[in-house]
Amino acid sequence: MAVYTHLGAEELARLIGEYDVGALVSAKGIAEGVSNSNWLVETAGTGDGTRRFILTMYERRIELADLPYFLGLLDHLSARGCPVPRTIHDRSGAAFRMESGKALALIEYLPGVSPTRPSPAQAAAVGEALARMHLESGDFALTRANTMGFADNLAVLEACGTEALAAIDPALPAMIEPARAAAALDTSHLPRGNIHADLFPDNVLMLGERVTGMIDFYFACTDSLALDLATTHAAWCFDAQTNAYDPARGQALLDAYQHVRPLEEAERRAFGRIAQGAALRFVASRAEDWHATPGDALVTRKDPMEFAQRWRFYAENGDHLVA
Amino acid sequence: MAVYTHLGAEELARLIGEYDVGALVSAKGIAEGVSNSNWLVETAGTGDGTRRFILTMYERRIELADLPYFLGLLDHLSARGCPVPRTIHDRSGAAFRMESGKALALIEYLPGVSPTRPSPAQAAAVGEALARMHLESGDFALTRANTMGFADNLAVLEACGTEALAAIDPALPAMIEPARAAAALDTSHLPRGNIHADLFPDNVLMLGERVTGMIDFYFACTDSLALDLATTHAAWCFDAQTNAYDPARGQALLDAYQHVRPLEEAERRAFGRIAQGAALRFVASRAEDWHATPGDALVTRKDPMEFAQRWRFYAENGDHLVA
Repeated sequence: MAVYTHLGAEELARLIGEYDVGALVSAKGIAEGVSNSNWLVETAGTGDGTRRFILTMYERRIELADLPYFLGLLDHLSARGCPVPRTIHDRSGAAFRMESGKALALIEYLPGVSPTRPSPAQAAAVGEALARMHLESGDFALTRANTMGFADNLAVLEACGTEALAAIDPALPAMIEPARAAAALDTSHLPRGNIHADLFPDNVLMLGERVTGMIDFYFACTDSLALDLATTHAAWCFDAQTNAYDPARGQALLDAYQHVRPLEEAERRAFGRIAQGAALRFVASRAEDWHATPGDALVTRKDPMEFAQRWRFYAENGDHLVA
Repeated sequence: MAVYTHLGAEELARLIGEYDVGALVSAKGIAEGVSNSNWLVETAGTGDGTRRFILTMYERRIELADLPYFLGLLDHLSARGCPVPRTIHDRSGAAFRMESGKALALIEYLPGVSPTRPSPAQAAAVGEALARMHLESGDFALTRANTMGFADNLAVLEACGTEALAAIDPALPAMIEPARAAAALDTSHLPRGNIHADLFPDNVLMLGERVTGMIDFYFACTDSLALDLATTHAAWCFDAQTNAYDPARGQALLDAYQHVRPLEEAERRAFGRIAQGAALRFVASRAEDWHATPGDALVTRKDPMEFAQRWRFYAENGDHLVA
C-alpha cells in the first residue's frame, strides 16, 4: 500500500511521451498494490478532453517472465468484451517498458469502486462476470502454472512449522492436516482455463450493481475454473466484520455463475473439497506473511484464522452449495 | 505519505452524496500528505462528463480550530483568481464535515505536476504567482499566528539539546547560535499578510512553465510577506542532488516576484537575515523529526544539514540577493 519508487514530473512526462496518449497533465501516486507502485495519470488526450491511465511499476514478487502472460491476458479478455483494463502499448508496440531495471506498464483506467459490504445483487454480478471470463479465457495463447496451488499451500504451512503456527493461534497447526488432504486432491480432470485466482472485492470495480472492472491479475494462472469460482466465493460471501457466511450473497454468486456456465457433474462433486483448498491458501499465505510483518508495522497483518474459519464452513457445508 | 483511514465504497458514496457534485464514480487513495488521508474522487458530474476532487481527511497535526482559516483562505484566494483549489461546500454550506470524529473536506482538483528540477522559467512563474497571492491575501478576514516562527525554531533546537543534535551531525549544535539571532529579529514593521509559508515544489502544480495550482496550505499563517518569499527561495533554488545554489533559478524567482510586488527598502535590508531564519526553520523541524523517525522506517528521514548548508549560503550571500 505505497509508492515505492519516486518518479519525478520530468521522468513521468518523458515516460508518457513514449505512448501515443497525449501530454502528461497530472500524476498522483495511489495507495494500492502491495508489489507495485501505481500512479493515476491524466493526459491531455488526443482529441477533446483528458484521458486517464494507471501507470504501474513492478517492484517485487512479480517475475518479469510472467508479465507477457499477465498483460497479454488483459488484452485477450478485453478484446472479448470482458470488463478488464487494456494494456496500452508504447509507440514501439511493447506492452511493458524497462526503466532503471524495473518493468513499467500503462494500463487503461476503469471507473468504479470496490464494495466492502457486497449485496447479493453485487455478488451475482461478480459471479456472472467471472463465468463470462472463464468462457473467454480458455483459448488465450499463453499458460502460467499456479504457484499457489494446493501442494504449495501445504509446503508453506509445513515450512512455517507447528511452533510458529501455534504462536499465531493455538488452532492453526491443525490446518496442516486438511492442507495435506487438499494437496492430495486431483483436479486435473476438471475444466481448465486461465483464471484470475484472487478475485477479492478489492480487485473488482463496480458502479452500483454493475461490474465495471476486474483488476490486479498478478496471481492469474492456468488452473481449474472451479478453483477460481471457489476462491471468489470464499472472498465475497463472508461478512467482513463477523466472518459469518452470508447465504444470500453466496447463493446469488453461485447461481449467477452457473446461469452462464453450469458446473459439470465432476466439478459439482469436487466443489466442497476445492473450496476447502481455496480457503486454506489464505490460511497459508497469511501465516507466512504474519511472521514477515512486525506487529507494529504500518501494514495491517491479516489473521490466518479468518480463513481457517471459512475452511471449516466449507468442510461442513461445501458439498451442498452446488448440489 | 499514506492513507491512514479506510473508507469503504459505501461510506465514500454516502459522503459524496452530501455535496452537490453528482454520484461517486471512482475513488483512489493517494499517497500524498503526511498529516492527512487523501482520495482522488471522480463523480458523474451534474452535466456532461465527469468531475474530479480531492477528498481530504485530517488525521494529525491539524488543529480543527485552524480549518476555517485554511479552507477560507483557499476560497478567498480562488475568488481573486489565484491558482489555488476551491473548497467545495456541502449542501448545508459547510466547508468541512465531521466523520467519526475526524474533519473532512472536499477540495477542487487541479491539473499539473510538481517539478523536481525546476527551470529558471518555472522558478519565475512561482515567484510571480507568490507575489500575486501576496497582493490578494492581505484583506482575508481571518488571521492565524505562525507556529513555526523564528522563536519557535530556536525553542525546537534548544529542546533537542546539543547532544541529540550532535548525534545527527557534529556541525548541527552550531546552528543554535544563528537560531538565537533569528529569534531576536524584529520583522513586525515589514509588510504582512496571509502567507503560504511552505511553498516547496511539492506544493506547486505546473503545466510546462505555468503554475496551475498552489496547494497544501496547512502551514499558512499571518506573517511577513518577505518571509514567504525567502522560504520559497530556499525551497526552490538549490539543486536537489548537489544542494548547490542555482543562481539562474534564484534570480529568476526574485526578479519575477519583484516585477509584481517590488520589495520595500526595509524588506530588502532585512532579506538576508530573514532568509537565514527561513532556512533554520527546516534545520529545526528536520532535527525534531529525525529522532521521532526510526532509521529503518518506510518514511525517508530528511537531513537537517541540507538546510544548515542553505543557511550558510544566506549568511554569506543573503544581503546581496535583492540589493
